[in-house]
Amino acid sequence: MDKLYGGIEAGGTWFVCAVGTDPDNLSAETRFRTTTPLATIKKAINFFQKQARSEALTAIGIGSFGPVDINPASPKHGHIIISPKPGWGNTDFAGMVRKALKVPVFLNTDVNVAALAEYRWGAAQGLDTFIYLTVGTGIGGGGIVNGQLMGGLIHPEMGHIRVPHDWNRDPFTGCCPFHEDCLEGLAAAPALAQRWGQPPETLPADHQAWQLEAHYLALGLNNLICTLSPQRIILGGGVMQQSQLFPMVRKMVQQILNEYLPAPEIVTDIDSYIVPPGLGRRAGVLGAIALAAESEQ
Amino acid sequence: MDKLYGGIEAGGTWFVCAVGTDPDNLSAETRFRTTTPLATIKKAINFFQKQARSEALTAIGIGSFGPVDINPASPKHGHIIISPKPGWGNTDFAGMVRKALKVPVFLNTDVNVAALAEYRWGAAQGLDTFIYLTVGTGIGGGGIVNGQLMGGLIHPEMGHIRVPHDWNRDPFTGCCPFHEDCLEGLAAAPALAQRWGQPPETLPADHQAWQLEAHYLALGLNNLICTLSPQRIILGGGVMQQSQLFPMVRKMVQQILNEYLPAPEIVTDIDSYIVPPGLGRRAGVLGAIALAAESEQ
Repeated sequence: MDKLYGGIEAGGTWFVCAVGTDPDNLSAETRFRTTTPLATIKKAINFFQKQARSEALTAIGIGSFGPVDINPASPKHGHIIISPKPGWGNTDFAGMVRKALKVPVFLNTDVNVAALAEYRWGAAQGLDTFIYLTVGTGIGGGGIVNGQLMGGLIHPEMGHIRVPHDWNRDPFTGCCPFHEDCLEGLAAAPALAQRWGQPPETLPADHQAWQLEAHYLALGLNNLICTLSPQRIILGGGVMQQSQLFPMVRKMVQQILNEYLPAPEIVTDIDSYIVPPGLGRRAGVLGAIALAAESEQ
Repeated sequence: MDKLYGGIEAGGTWFVCAVGTDPDNLSAETRFRTTTPLATIKKAINFFQKQARSEALTAIGIGSFGPVDINPASPKHGHIIISPKPGWGNTDFAGMVRKALKVPVFLNTDVNVAALAEYRWGAAQGLDTFIYLTVGTGIGGGGIVNGQLMGGLIHPEMGHIRVPHDWNRDPFTGCCPFHEDCLEGLAAAPALAQRWGQPPETLPADHQAWQLEAHYLALGLNNLICTLSPQRIILGGGVMQQSQLFPMVRKMVQQILNEYLPAPEIVTDIDSYIVPPGLGRRAGVLGAIALAAESEQ
């Protein structure tokens, strides 16, 4: 019998669950709001239990917001270890799913698994070093370096880099509960909502909010480019649904780098260097499935 | 006969050349000032020609300031492609050495090869993801991720990340010719010299310069930690000879991260997380030798 995998994309606002093997074979999909850990993880478990084929699942992959413990050798492996999201710190996410469904469960960050899906089936095929950055409820970054998922000491937390805060244009102090005006505190959706006093999706495309947003994102991308030298950057997440951001961010990245890095990918072909996910909003859940498939082998 | 390698550490201020195989077997070593490309590279070639055993060199490795082209598939492989250092842009560094000495020549960044030496023989043994950052004439960063030297599109240029410029404390505008107040423009040796009006090595250890320097370096390290999640950070280069910087930088990194990353390495054991090179000032030239040994196999 063919193998079949479950995937959970655990985002700060939404959970997405699906069953399948790849973009052309997703047999079920559901999404629901992220509330408390118990209630939300229970809903995910119920989804897989209700699938007629739940018994046949070979493994489940989870791509989660975090920080999470992705080190297989750690006693806290599979836990959300700490989180700006109230109530979610120290949650044994993978363990709860494993106990309820009795299948192997593998967990990595939401952005690392999205990167994995883009690497297999999307905008990063054929590359060996790239970044997937999501800009939504938070800002998170992951990716693949030298052909392997990023990990290291914990895992990347790219949203919490510091960039110059443009106090002249932007008196908003930032809203990261840990760092105030880190990149996430200045440029994730809650920062937009608090700075402009309305949900970001209601701001018109020509609102000055987007120029400032592009400015901060471009500063962040400059730092990621100078640190990792990625062959491509994929920008996903709810805020990046504002597609007018892409040309602004690209142009500002070029201005900030100021031709210091003379790669044609940046200097002339930046439209295919900073791109939306090839798999759109499905990158997260497909990546969770890819993680399950890759890990259980 | 045993293999013997040549190594060139090409820094912005000094060139170091040596012959050998490892820290316990360095049979010759010389250093001279970096002047024009032709004169300086000629001196390096002369050094190897004068070594009695020059004929026996199996290969030469070069760790160079840059940016350099480290992609073996590129027609400009082994070139310094562009440089804030006048005259050095578009120099076929590896090619000139190869033609003169008729041995295989391999080139990577000065910091990547220093990282390679620390990985083999120094402060990064047994790790698979770490960063080597040098703070001297410029600021450069390299390292190993998932067990392999960092590369990607070009290679890391960590000195050119942007960090918040503390205008209240620091009216100095920055001195990077490309970016003005990037990390290098604020915190490399020339920035210290211009800001305080005297060579940094003449500033007393309790001068306020070092608090500000530690502040900028800590902001930079925060960004590198959040981006790459290194298992250790090695800080080398002339400015880091000011050993009073280490405890200041460590404390400020903890303050900036604000316990967001709950790894004991950072929260409690930071003295062995942010460290000087295990090989001291020899990391560069030993890394060039390691690069030659690794590449020619």
